[in-house]
Amino acid sequence: MKATVYVTIKQNVLDVQGTAVQGALHSMGFEEVGKVRIGKYLELELGNVDKAEAETRVKAMCEKLLANTVIEDYRYELA
Amino acid sequence: MKATVYVTIKQNVLDVQGTAVQGALHSMGFEEVGKVRIGKYLELELGNVDKAEAETRVKAMCEKLLANTVIEDYRYELA
Repeated sequence: MKATVYVTIKQNVLDVQGTAVQGALHSMGFEEVGKVRIGKYLELELGNVDKAEAETRVKAMCEKLLANTVIEDYRYELA
Repeated sequence: MKATVYVTIKQNVLDVQGTAVQGALHSMGFEEVGKVRIGKYLELELGNVDKAEAETRVKAMCEKLLANTVIEDYRYELA
């Protein structure tokens, strides 16, 4: 089983990295770019676990290590 | 139009951040976790551009700024 985790800055938190990238894109001539938000993308290999078990475990990993839930949201897909 | 860009380390390049996260997860009791790969996830707002134009522009942004194509792959979705 493989998990894909997306960690993004919460909507009401200032994304400084995104703002910097937006500025850089503007200065390079990509003026059409509006808001930029940057997050993390993780691929985890999970071995042979069933889907319900994997769901619980990946949620725990996100809460404990992968996302800072004070300022970040996360979502995941299992395949 | 909105673009979602995924930037990942190439398969044959060592992902040190992923290895560190894997080690941390193991030491926290998540021993089922195999390989971990970490990338970036970007959301760009593009204003009113047509899809073909957006495709060309986003590709250029990836090549010039968002991805280091020596060690990273990128893919994007337009919606």
